[in-house]
Amino acid sequence: MNKLMEIVSRSNSIAITSHIDPDGDSIGSILGLGLALKQKYKNIKILIRDSLPSRYEFLPGSELIKKYDDIEEQKFDLLFVLDCGDEKRIGSNEILKNSKTIVNIDHHISNTKFGDINIIDASSSSTCEMVFSFIKDLNLLINKEVATCIYTGIVTDSGNFMYDSATEKTHLIASELLKTNLNKGRIIYNLYQRKSINSLKFIGYSLTNMKIALDGRLAIFKVTLDLLNEFNVSYDNIEGLVSYGRDIEGIDISVVIREQENGKVKLSFRSKDDDVDVRALAQLFNGGGHKKASGATLTASLAEAESMVIEKSRKFVRW
Amino acid sequence: MNKLMEIVSRSNSIAITSHIDPDGDSIGSILGLGLALKQKYKNIKILIRDSLPSRYEFLPGSELIKKYDDIEEQKFDLLFVLDCGDEKRIGSNEILKNSKTIVNIDHHISNTKFGDINIIDASSSSTCEMVFSFIKDLNLLINKEVATCIYTGIVTDSGNFMYDSATEKTHLIASELLKTNLNKGRIIYNLYQRKSINSLKFIGYSLTNMKIALDGRLAIFKVTLDLLNEFNVSYDNIEGLVSYGRDIEGIDISVVIREQENGKVKLSFRSKDDDVDVRALAQLFNGGGHKKASGATLTASLAEAESMVIEKSRKFVRW
Repeated sequence: MNKLMEIVSRSNSIAITSHIDPDGDSIGSILGLGLALKQKYKNIKILIRDSLPSRYEFLPGSELIKKYDDIEEQKFDLLFVLDCGDEKRIGSNEILKNSKTIVNIDHHISNTKFGDINIIDASSSSTCEMVFSFIKDLNLLINKEVATCIYTGIVTDSGNFMYDSATEKTHLIASELLKTNLNKGRIIYNLYQRKSINSLKFIGYSLTNMKIALDGRLAIFKVTLDLLNEFNVSYDNIEGLVSYGRDIEGIDISVVIREQENGKVKLSFRSKDDDVDVRALAQLFNGGGHKKASGATLTASLAEAESMVIEKSRKFVRW
Repeated sequence: MNKLMEIVSRSNSIAITSHIDPDGDSIGSILGLGLALKQKYKNIKILIRDSLPSRYEFLPGSELIKKYDDIEEQKFDLLFVLDCGDEKRIGSNEILKNSKTIVNIDHHISNTKFGDINIIDASSSSTCEMVFSFIKDLNLLINKEVATCIYTGIVTDSGNFMYDSATEKTHLIASELLKTNLNKGRIIYNLYQRKSINSLKFIGYSLTNMKIALDGRLAIFKVTLDLLNEFNVSYDNIEGLVSYGRDIEGIDISVVIREQENGKVKLSFRSKDDDVDVRALAQLFNGGGHKKASGATLTASLAEAESMVIEKSRKFVRW
C-alpha cells in the first residue's frame, strides 16, 4: 500500500473509470474514490463511456462524471479502473494505452488482471467494499458524501445484503458508513422507490406472460423493443425483472432475453445457488459475471436466442 | 437486568409468546429467546395462537412451537410476550391472567405496556434486535441456531436493512450473527425464493389492475376471496403486494384491501416517508403498527372499504 500511496502522490493527473453500462457499484465506487482523492489531490477526472443512469444522479459528486468523448485527451499519469472484469468493458482503448500506470480494483472472479497493479478480491460483496478499505489505507476520510456513494454500491451489488457475498465484514463496513449520518432513506428512495406506474404495469405483463421451461427449472422473460415502446418504458426501468423468475420455488435459472436496436440480443441470467453457475453458462455465449448473476450479448433473433438458452441451460439446472 | 436474571432463575415454568398472525420477527424472537433460555433452563414453552406459517418451518426449534389450544394449562411463573404491541394481540386472555410475571419486550411505539416489566425500544429495527441484547445480558450464548432465528427477524422486519430503523447497531448485530457461520443462503431461500408460479401470476394480475387515486398519491390493490381461489394462492403467498404500490414515484400511500371469510376486510398500509404516517391512518380504522407500515380490520364490503380508505387517506398524503 505504501507503494500505491507513493504512486498516487507523485501522479500529476489521475483518472478513475469503470465499465460500460454502469451500475450502482461502478458509479458508487468511482464517485466514492473520486471524492476521497479530491480531499488531497487536485487533478482528478472521473470518466465513463456512457451517460450516467438517472437513478444515480442523486449521488454526491455525480456532476463530476464526464464521458470519454467530453474530454480532450485521455492521457493520465495514473488510471484507476474499478469494478471492471476485463479491459474491453472499459469502452475505450485510448485511455488504457495512454495512461502510465493502471490500477485495477475489482471483485469479479473472472478479472483478467489487465492493470499494472491488480487488487482483486472475489470474496468481496462489491468493488465499493474494496474501495472503502482502499480509501482508509490511503489515510483519506470516509465522510458523509463518500459514505453515501460506497453504501449505494454495497447495497446494489449485494442485493441489500442478501447475497452470500455480504459477509460479517460487509456489515461492519455498513455500520461504519451509517455512522457518518448519511441519509439512507434518500438512497433507498432513489434506488428503489421511484418506479413509474408504466414499469410496474410492464412487470405485471411480464409475470403474466413468463415462460417456464426445462420441467420447471428455467424461467424465461422475453422483452421486445415493441413491448418496451408499447408500455413506454426503457429497460433501465425494469432491470429487476430477472430476479422474479429466480425467486420461484424449483426454478434454478431465470433469464431475460432482451432485443437490442442492432439486431443483437442481451441475456441476463440469475440463479439462487452456487451449484447452478450462470457465469459458466454466460461464458458459453462469450459473456461473464458472477456465479449467481451473469450476462452476455449475442447476434440472434429472440426466438433463436431462446432456443439456444434452453438448450445450453439444460446441463446447468439440477435434475 | 440483574432483577430480570433473578426472576428467570427462580421461575419454575417459563413461557414465551407473541402476536396473532405471526411474522418473521415474532417467530424469530420467540424461537431465538426460547433456544437461548433452553441452554440453561428446562421448563420452557413456546406458544402462539395460530399455526406456524410454513415459510418459518425451516427455523431451528420450530418444532417446539405449540398452539395455546395444544397445552393443558396456560399458567406460568414467567411469561415473555415478544413483539406484541397490545395484550389483545396475544390471542389469549387466559395466559395473561394466569401468569405470575409478564415481561413485555417490543419495538412498537404504540405498545400499551401491559407487562409487569416492559422493555420497549421503538428505535429498534425489530424485536429480534432487542432479544439479541437481552440474551447477551442474560449471559446466554448466541449460537448458530439462535443467530439464525434472530437474523430472520431482523431481515424481515427491517426490509433487508432498507428501513431507517436498521441502524449502525443493527449492522453490528448482523455482523456478529454472521460470525456464527449461520447459513444465510438457506434463510434467504426460505424467506424469499420459494414463491409459487401462481403467486407471481397473481402479482402480475394485481399490478395490471392496480388502481391509482388521489391524483397519483394513493395506490390501491383489491384482493377478493374469488381471486385468491382463481389463482389458487393464499394471502400468505402474496404478502409483499402492498410494497409494489409504495415503490412508485409520487405514491405516498399504498394499500391492500383484502376480503376476509367473515364479512370483514383487512387493510394493509405502507408509506415511504415518515411524513406520511400510516400508523395514524390505521388508527382511524382502530388498527395500528408503525409509521411506514400499518394495518387494520373492519366490517365492510370491499367497495365500502375502498371509499373509506380514499376518503381518510386524503389528509395523510402530501399535496
